Amino acid sequence: STSDTKITVELLRQLRQAMRNTKYIAEPIQAYIVPSGDAHQSEYIAPCDCRREFICGFNGSAGTAIVTEKHAAMWTDGRYFLQASQQMDNNWTLMKMGLKETLSQEDWLISVLPENSTVGVDPWIIAADQWKNMSKALASAGHSLVAVQDNLIDAIWMDRPTRPSTQLLTLGLGFTGLTWQDKMTALRSKMAERKISWFVATALDEIAWLFNLRGSDIEYNPVFFAYAIVGMNTIRLFVDIKRLAVPTVREHLQLDTPSKVELSIQTAPYESVFTELQAVCASLGPKEKVWISDKASCALMQVIPKTHRSPIPYTPLCLAKAVKNATEIQGMKMAHIKDAVALCELFAWLEKEIPKGTVTEISAADKAEELRSQQKDFVGLSFPSISSVGPNGAIIHYRPLPETNRTLSLNEIYLLDSGAQYIDGTTDVTRTMHFGSPSAYEKETFTYVLKGHIAVSAAIFPNGTKGHLLDSFARQALWESGLDYLHGTGHGVGCFLNVHEGPCGISYKTFADEPLEAGMIVSDEPGYYEDGLFGIRIENVVLVVPAKPKYNYRNKGSLTFEPLTLVPIQAKMVNTDLLTQKERDWVNEYHRQCRETIGAELERQGRKEAMDWLIRETQPIA
Amino acid sequence: STSDTKITVELLRQLRQAMRNTKYIAEPIQAYIVPSGDAHQSEYIAPCDCRREFICGFNGSAGTAIVTEKHAAMWTDGRYFLQASQQMDNNWTLMKMGLKETLSQEDWLISVLPENSTVGVDPWIIAADQWKNMSKALASAGHSLVAVQDNLIDAIWMDRPTRPSTQLLTLGLGFTGLTWQDKMTALRSKMAERKISWFVATALDEIAWLFNLRGSDIEYNPVFFAYAIVGMNTIRLFVDIKRLAVPTVREHLQLDTPSKVELSIQTAPYESVFTELQAVCASLGPKEKVWISDKASCALMQVIPKTHRSPIPYTPLCLAKAVKNATEIQGMKMAHIKDAVALCELFAWLEKEIPKGTVTEISAADKAEELRSQQKDFVGLSFPSISSVGPNGAIIHYRPLPETNRTLSLNEIYLLDSGAQYIDGTTDVTRTMHFGSPSAYEKETFTYVLKGHIAVSAAIFPNGTKGHLLDSFARQALWESGLDYLHGTGHGVGCFLNVHEGPCGISYKTFADEPLEAGMIVSDEPGYYEDGLFGIRIENVVLVVPAKPKYNYRNKGSLTFEPLTLVPIQAKMVNTDLLTQKERDWVNEYHRQCRETIGAELERQGRKEAMDWLIRETQPIA
Repeated sequence: STSDTKITVELLRQLRQAMRNTKYIAEPIQAYIVPSGDAHQSEYIAPCDCRREFICGFNGSAGTAIVTEKHAAMWTDGRYFLQASQQMDNNWTLMKMGLKETLSQEDWLISVLPENSTVGVDPWIIAADQWKNMSKALASAGHSLVAVQDNLIDAIWMDRPTRPSTQLLTLGLGFTGLTWQDKMTALRSKMAERKISWFVATALDEIAWLFNLRGSDIEYNPVFFAYAIVGMNTIRLFVDIKRLAVPTVREHLQLDTPSKVELSIQTAPYESVFTELQAVCASLGPKEKVWISDKASCALMQVIPKTHRSPIPYTPLCLAKAVKNATEIQGMKMAHIKDAVALCELFAWLEKEIPKGTVTEISAADKAEELRSQQKDFVGLSFPSISSVGPNGAIIHYRPLPETNRTLSLNEIYLLDSGAQYIDGTTDVTRTMHFGSPSAYEKETFTYVLKGHIAVSAAIFPNGTKGHLLDSFARQALWESGLDYLHGTGHGVGCFLNVHEGPCGISYKTFADEPLEAGMIVSDEPGYYEDGLFGIRIENVVLVVPAKPKYNYRNKGSLTFEPLTLVPIQAKMVNTDLLTQKERDWVNEYHRQCRETIGAELERQGRKEAMDWLIRETQPIA
Repeated sequence: STSDTKITVELLRQLRQAMRNTKYIAEPIQAYIVPSGDAHQSEYIAPCDCRREFICGFNGSAGTAIVTEKHAAMWTDGRYFLQASQQMDNNWTLMKMGLKETLSQEDWLISVLPENSTVGVDPWIIAADQWKNMSKALASAGHSLVAVQDNLIDAIWMDRPTRPSTQLLTLGLGFTGLTWQDKMTALRSKMAERKISWFVATALDEIAWLFNLRGSDIEYNPVFFAYAIVGMNTIRLFVDIKRLAVPTVREHLQLDTPSKVELSIQTAPYESVFTELQAVCASLGPKEKVWISDKASCALMQVIPKTHRSPIPYTPLCLAKAVKNATEIQGMKMAHIKDAVALCELFAWLEKEIPKGTVTEISAADKAEELRSQQKDFVGLSFPSISSVGPNGAIIHYRPLPETNRTLSLNEIYLLDSGAQYIDGTTDVTRTMHFGSPSAYEKETFTYVLKGHIAVSAAIFPNGTKGHLLDSFARQALWESGLDYLHGTGHGVGCFLNVHEGPCGISYKTFADEPLEAGMIVSDEPGYYEDGLFGIRIENVVLVVPAKPKYNYRNKGSLTFEPLTLVPIQAKMVNTDLLTQKERDWVNEYHRQCRETIGAELERQGRKEAMDWLIRETQPIA
């Protein structure tokens, strides 16, 4: 352990005391689980929800801590073994997930607990499906899982930050394409179709999308803490009431002048969702059903009596949000043009500055942010920039820190995976560049990754195809040479929303994905990583569009992808001998589009150096 | 309905009487389910197990009948809608699975049953996982599923055939590569590894494989009715005792002179497995676990108390059987050489005979069987031959019948999907031929199918890859032109065992498949079907072998396929302009191997006409 290590002796003593304190629980509990999420199962969380980090010191994005009377253990995956072992003191055992010898949380609990133990967890921060599995496993060994209503970490966390309540931003039709009233009507018709009386919205991005509102409660994600309950004639929005005092927000939600009774929104404090849902459930008719995501918190799920509960893996909002309308597509295109302008400017600047030896991973990322922030309607980054030189590029979820910060040079590959939130759209792009002379091996592997990128981007496939069926196309060229990469190929991308969203994606791991449809937006990002040497990834955000191949089997129709990202792919890194004519044509056509579309905008913005760079980088390859 | 239709008025009256008869059940049942399988969930079943066919007349391979006091309904899939509607009289409602408006069995039962109904099923012919789902669904609507020990179809089936008890064939080391004692020891070490005390074998092919025995109780599948229960020091084999009177069998199983006590086999009648398993379970220690397939019958599963039960999707025998040893691989190669000899002879003969207008789908299939039967160690066909001309080829599971029998001609495509059982191996091959001049469209689509076939066969992929990740390679060329086929790409193939076996395969539908390993054998069979016109399929059986690409990422190693089937692919059907150089090379190398290997055997067997045909059909393409 290093200076980074959090000392947890006293905290663990306090937590164990709380586990026996009748102020919180009727009977002492023998173990307490601290999951890493918030009450909405968000991927990124606010500081007030970093409870697992508070108790053990480990601040990675994934990990679960469990404390018993004698033990404290924390489960995380391969990305974080090193970091976790440095951040946790020796009161904690690191449970390395994915290793054969590592016990699961359930098996570990069963192995260390005395007979008939009680395990506690905050029902608000454990997802309903996880609760179910854990509860079943513990019961089979004679233990029981109980919901502890007061969070025991909060009980001992003296300087816990308050829950953010940032200003709400209202989005007009020019950005959303649909009013929230339209979206509400569409939701209700889905409910009617499936004979559902109520829908409980718990995912923050779904609520933001439904109401055409944005916030900044969580870094990188333009969302705000809220719940919504929608009935056929009722809309209840649970949110910090102070936020609704702003006239533009009141006007947007028609709080004072509702047009129709069924579109009048009743607002209530964020915390009151529990009692309000109880009230709704108490008045349900015998056959009435309530839709709720199976990833909702156990607390909310259990409010709904089993006979009325209809848990679903993807809510109708999640599905509707994934298929972008014409306005959203137009916005995403605009955002990607602005983003490309910033990146062309950045790469032209890097070319000039790198030889001076003064550019580092951190300063390059900062420069990228600065250039993006000059673009219209810039809001912030869409995730922490992965700015990595040489061996750091092989660390897939790398984020430069002062102690790892490497200088960009003419000798090492530079990988930049970054993106931004603009009011009209969200971007996510990776380019891998060499500013000197890449080795034959670097070019060879880069070219395999490019072949995989093209194979997905140019793929034509039947309507109704799920994204995971395209994953192997991205790997074929690498596999042929005995290479591979250990991450998925693509994820759904929100429109001025989360950079990662369901229900579609391109991954060998996901089989629960929904079929791709025209209007969906995903990333295409194969890679190759040589531990200790370099990392390569080529990522575009692509739009699913109809394709018109020669035939149309069973009138099913076909789909393909259109790149939204328009940033040149460095030709210097390509071994053109390894490309087929079709692949060379794809690269040249892509670069023609970059030159045409981004060139026009660079011209308009008068960015001469970036323009020269763009012209040079988009020369046709032979 | 046609002359094919079975009249079921009287049978249904009798069945409904049995459903109220206290001789069989304490209380009347309101519905009775008749599944299509046998007690081992075999894909093909013996005549005595064709209970669903007996009650409703429909004799397809998949379908479930349910009879209530007032209704009778039968569920089957799209392959069989026409056939089922012809074979069933109007007492039966055909439930078309896969159509949106068709209720599931559970939902239909709930919609027609009076409150608090009891639904009966024979627990021996419903798989444990199916029982669980059905029972849960019925319970949620206030009904209950009960096990009816006496099969009510058997009760009214006067001339029901007896269960076959064919002669057992013992296989020596020269065919199996491992003695049954070796296999038993390997099984026990897997059990010890996972702390399992007992294993119950219920799948017929697993039992045949384990004991190096074969039978002919079920057409096409060289298996025999049996169960086995294996403990760490005990082996119990449940089989018709008469079959064990043969000296070679007694010797093979060492029934009279067991070498070691833990390898001594206790034999017992087939029917006694239930009471013997009860006895085993009664003597289990508190922590002892019993392995059983989750596809075992509900009857056997429920004998094992829940705390001792360890149901598994794939048994250790299923996994061990899938990876063929060197002797089995050698046997499979020999079987495929003999099979190719028969097919070369057939195709040479067809070329000569077709112009006379005397060859039909049925006579061509018969000729193929006759030629195969001339080969050494021929046992029988491995499945009913799909011999189809023109539009019949578009019916994926076609089987020629006198009323559909078409004559082979110079104008229509001929598709032959056939295979055989030899003592050294099992074959399954599809070739699609044109004996006149194929149209440009026929050649175009054939070539796309060929490209897909090659893409799978030549694929290089990392060790540990599951077969379903290769499925899209087979479709890529078809998809690019807007075409597709609606079946999987490949299935596991047994060695002188079932032509379809788990746990591996190549399909977009299966995600529960096990990773491919060197020594596994699967089929590679993409197709294209133009309804009302023609069908195309190109199928080889291929062996998973290690590949040696340029690099070796993380020392994982790579795999590829080696074709075992060596029958020329008709060059006349190929539009060579659509092939890449790599694909042309693959075809030429494949044909070189056919000529070399099959040529040598044709020469040895003195089959001159087939030899001439082979030489001509294996000329390199330009």
